[in-house]
Amino acid sequence: MADYRAPIDEVSFVINDLLNISQLNSIPEFAEATPELVEAVVEEAGKFAADVFAPLNRPGDIAHSHAKDGAVKTPAGFKEAYKLFSENGWLSLAQPPQYGGQGLPFTVHMVASEFWCASNMALSICPMLSAGAIDALLAHASDELKDRYLPKLISSEWTGTMNLTESHAGSDLSNLKTKARPDGAHYRIKGQKIFITWGEHDMADNIVHIVLAPLEDAPAGVKGLSLFAVPKFLVNEDGSLGERNDLRVVSTEHKLGINASPTCVMSFGEDEGAIGHMIGKPGQGLACMFTLMNHARLEVGLEGVGLSERAYQDALAYARERVQGRDPVTGESTTIIGHPDVQRMLMQMKSLTGAMRCLCTDNALSHDLRKHSQDQDEQKFHQNRFALLTPITKAWCTELVNEVTSLGVQIHGGMGFIEETGVAQHYRDARITAIYEGTNGIQANDLVGRKLVRNQGHGMRAMLAEFDQTLATLPVGEHELMRQRFTSAKDDLSESAEFILQHADDSPKLMGAVAFNFLMQMGYVLGAWYHLRSAGVASEKLAAGEGNQAFYENKVTAAEFYITQLLPRAAAHQQAVIHGAEIGSRLGADSFY
Amino acid sequence: MADYRAPIDEVSFVINDLLNISQLNSIPEFAEATPELVEAVVEEAGKFAADVFAPLNRPGDIAHSHAKDGAVKTPAGFKEAYKLFSENGWLSLAQPPQYGGQGLPFTVHMVASEFWCASNMALSICPMLSAGAIDALLAHASDELKDRYLPKLISSEWTGTMNLTESHAGSDLSNLKTKARPDGAHYRIKGQKIFITWGEHDMADNIVHIVLAPLEDAPAGVKGLSLFAVPKFLVNEDGSLGERNDLRVVSTEHKLGINASPTCVMSFGEDEGAIGHMIGKPGQGLACMFTLMNHARLEVGLEGVGLSERAYQDALAYARERVQGRDPVTGESTTIIGHPDVQRMLMQMKSLTGAMRCLCTDNALSHDLRKHSQDQDEQKFHQNRFALLTPITKAWCTELVNEVTSLGVQIHGGMGFIEETGVAQHYRDARITAIYEGTNGIQANDLVGRKLVRNQGHGMRAMLAEFDQTLATLPVGEHELMRQRFTSAKDDLSESAEFILQHADDSPKLMGAVAFNFLMQMGYVLGAWYHLRSAGVASEKLAAGEGNQAFYENKVTAAEFYITQLLPRAAAHQQAVIHGAEIGSRLGADSFY
Repeated sequence: MADYRAPIDEVSFVINDLLNISQLNSIPEFAEATPELVEAVVEEAGKFAADVFAPLNRPGDIAHSHAKDGAVKTPAGFKEAYKLFSENGWLSLAQPPQYGGQGLPFTVHMVASEFWCASNMALSICPMLSAGAIDALLAHASDELKDRYLPKLISSEWTGTMNLTESHAGSDLSNLKTKARPDGAHYRIKGQKIFITWGEHDMADNIVHIVLAPLEDAPAGVKGLSLFAVPKFLVNEDGSLGERNDLRVVSTEHKLGINASPTCVMSFGEDEGAIGHMIGKPGQGLACMFTLMNHARLEVGLEGVGLSERAYQDALAYARERVQGRDPVTGESTTIIGHPDVQRMLMQMKSLTGAMRCLCTDNALSHDLRKHSQDQDEQKFHQNRFALLTPITKAWCTELVNEVTSLGVQIHGGMGFIEETGVAQHYRDARITAIYEGTNGIQANDLVGRKLVRNQGHGMRAMLAEFDQTLATLPVGEHELMRQRFTSAKDDLSESAEFILQHADDSPKLMGAVAFNFLMQMGYVLGAWYHLRSAGVASEKLAAGEGNQAFYENKVTAAEFYITQLLPRAAAHQQAVIHGAEIGSRLGADSFY
Repeated sequence: MADYRAPIDEVSFVINDLLNISQLNSIPEFAEATPELVEAVVEEAGKFAADVFAPLNRPGDIAHSHAKDGAVKTPAGFKEAYKLFSENGWLSLAQPPQYGGQGLPFTVHMVASEFWCASNMALSICPMLSAGAIDALLAHASDELKDRYLPKLISSEWTGTMNLTESHAGSDLSNLKTKARPDGAHYRIKGQKIFITWGEHDMADNIVHIVLAPLEDAPAGVKGLSLFAVPKFLVNEDGSLGERNDLRVVSTEHKLGINASPTCVMSFGEDEGAIGHMIGKPGQGLACMFTLMNHARLEVGLEGVGLSERAYQDALAYARERVQGRDPVTGESTTIIGHPDVQRMLMQMKSLTGAMRCLCTDNALSHDLRKHSQDQDEQKFHQNRFALLTPITKAWCTELVNEVTSLGVQIHGGMGFIEETGVAQHYRDARITAIYEGTNGIQANDLVGRKLVRNQGHGMRAMLAEFDQTLATLPVGEHELMRQRFTSAKDDLSESAEFILQHADDSPKLMGAVAFNFLMQMGYVLGAWYHLRSAGVASEKLAAGEGNQAFYENKVTAAEFYITQLLPRAAAHQQAVIHGAEIGSRLGADSFY
């Protein structure tokens, strides 16, 4: 396993050359986010990830986190690393200065987050969940609650969790058994939640559980749900820690991956009821939770990028070092990077990872602009764009990370299957990303049901217009093969979308039957769009003789590879949508035996 | 996790309705292999797998096999299960009666092997490797060696291993450091081998290591390699066990999966040299080993089928039991099998598994016919067919098993990521199959380099002629959409093959650059061919009102799903071959950073 190094050059290309993050600098809130500052932050984050988080990744996987007697012991070094993370203020990058944040763009936070995920996925989930709790509180909590919790969460002295799932209620939260009852100025929560990542641990002074539960007399269904902040230790009015709240970890799960992160069964209110404060209004719990989940979905997509990058670095290092066979051109003994099929696998890893990174970063930029643009039309444009791109960001990237980390294993041959090598861990760690924060099936249904059909195709057509814009601005005669193939893929995507819009009412099952393939098709076309734009930018740099010419040449190569070898998958998904909709809608429980 | 049940109905459909295994019964050697006997054997094998092997699968994964003080302790119950396997003569099904075998077709052995893989992949590798050792001895050893080793290997009282890999020599065996020197009537072997599956264990009285090594004075390269039988205990002339040979297990690996199977580092000849007997002639070692490896490749493809079937059964059971969300048609609370995207995933699993099973079984049948057909032309036809299909059988099935077992995890949602559920094990166990017995990259190079280009496309065109034959015999107007799409996929495949034949000399890298995509394309087209034929047979049964009508209806449904939703992937691979060849050939070590 190679030492992780943050891909600063790649990230810098995406935020500067491709997406022009400096446009944010002209927004008053981001006046301090100069290109120089952003560059410095990104470099420091990269160093921190490489120096502090990365060395703990494999030992953490071996040690696991364990629950015992109501406490969770994290792997050696985690507590100290997390304390450094807190002291360096890494979670506060994009948080509001009012509560101790640094007020930088969300996009900058996301760039740094890639490094946390890549260097230590299991550990990175802890601040990721804190960020979710912060989002929920910022958007919906009373000022009193905000004052009480936000500064310590933002400084990472405390951490946060998301408590949704119960053993009978995963994707469907309409029938939760955990209940809340009013008790003076607060509520008492009773019930058991499962799959609570970092639900208990020894790295922070307090843990703020964000708990979804109906009031006892609430109407049935998701409209009866409310959201509560339920701290491990009660917080006194002066901000000091009070009594232990009535909640405890029951056990931790033995999982396929992310073993260093404790996945807890949490019990609330075994005695008099855990004390919680409502966030937002009664019955608004799920809506409030979605604020949090949209971010979390973006960050889970980014976990796909981080693990893919890590797997790629390991595979590349091994391919450069492992001697085996003969080079087909020279006939000489070669390291395996000389073999065309190894080159194919490496370039598949590289070009998919690059496409995913563009998508995540571009979506993060839309998030900044939907919130902070000075222009209301632009805000609205990015609101719709963010809504459309979020399920794709989450699901496409997390499907691909399984492929990329699997290729990483494959390039290592038999050594990849041996845990000591470390690359099997990436493959195991990656597998959860397609499942949590809403399975990819849920994302696909969200994309097709809400973002395409309910939106009557407006967001989709706006995206297609962006594609046309790129084609219109690409210099004539440049990258002709790529242009042709992208144009064809874009037209196919439009055809799929119109097919779904026209036929959505043919059968109550049609949208669900085609949703996943439509999402994947759109993901691949978006990936091609970013590659084509990247190639365009790189060509300009090459023509101007600017910067690292080999880097820009490789950008064009990666785009050519992606568009000729991987983009054709979009057409396969399109065929599955258009020709497969009928049989898909016709399937039933009795189609299987 | 559901209890495993052998898919007798599926297997019976393939061997009887689709492939007409009874044609073998007319060959004198197989006069006893009546349809009734085959059916009885298959049913008993299914029961044995379900009752004896399957219950040990998860406990074996937890316990692992461990090396200590030169011995390997297998998980509780393994020794007893393996003894029963031996007593029931399960490995002897297709072995020659001369050495205690039952003389049934290889195809019957393969059907039973699917059940062993599915019920307990880690354990099943042990007899699979014994079968490999038997093959090598049968084909190349002296009568004396055969008499000494075969009866006990065939009865499974002893087991066999394959010793090829050394730490610096995996896919490339041209530079082995293990050496053999003549010493009277035998040889002395010295060296260390790694990745020796079931290299040491406590389940059998003796272990016969088949070891690849050059004689000390052999020419460099693979043409200097010889093959040796090196037993753990020397065998006296009367067949009784003699002294312990000079070889030992050094350690076992900690792996991603197949944890119950010990993967050993083996040390030969630390003292006076391990005593071995040469199999075949000096310098013929690799050729002899390929006899063994062709079978092993087929059986590894079959591991893909077995694990896919197991994952499918678990996912189907869970989907029928897990209540979540509402049925889009009725609006009622539903088990998740009511959700279209879950149906998609289940049907992907089912239709891919079915296609893989057909390919493995059809290839096994070719193996029987290439060896035993009464007609020399038919022998030759199947010789070529077997050669062409083997790399595809190995690689396509083992690529897909990763997808199918991953879908099995996905259908379980968060529970799929918890090891207790048992489905993550299938995903972990599956990952090695794309690597061992020649990585899938090696298989792809074999297909394109040897089986397509060196064969000047003859085998390929014979396969295409079989496809045309199917289209010609399909009743006019039946399954029109499937016919169209298969025809188009077949034409695409022909185009890819001709493209490679025409351009193979354009660049020394071209074949390697397109090989994997060509193999995958051909796998998907073969899968469609089997589905189309299956649908044809099923339609006949439906028209005649014969048998289990729901079963046959499902066969047509699975074919329609596969051909509309999955076959389009073949075109994506074709595009990657034709449009991707240029960039693929242009990649080099400096395309990455």
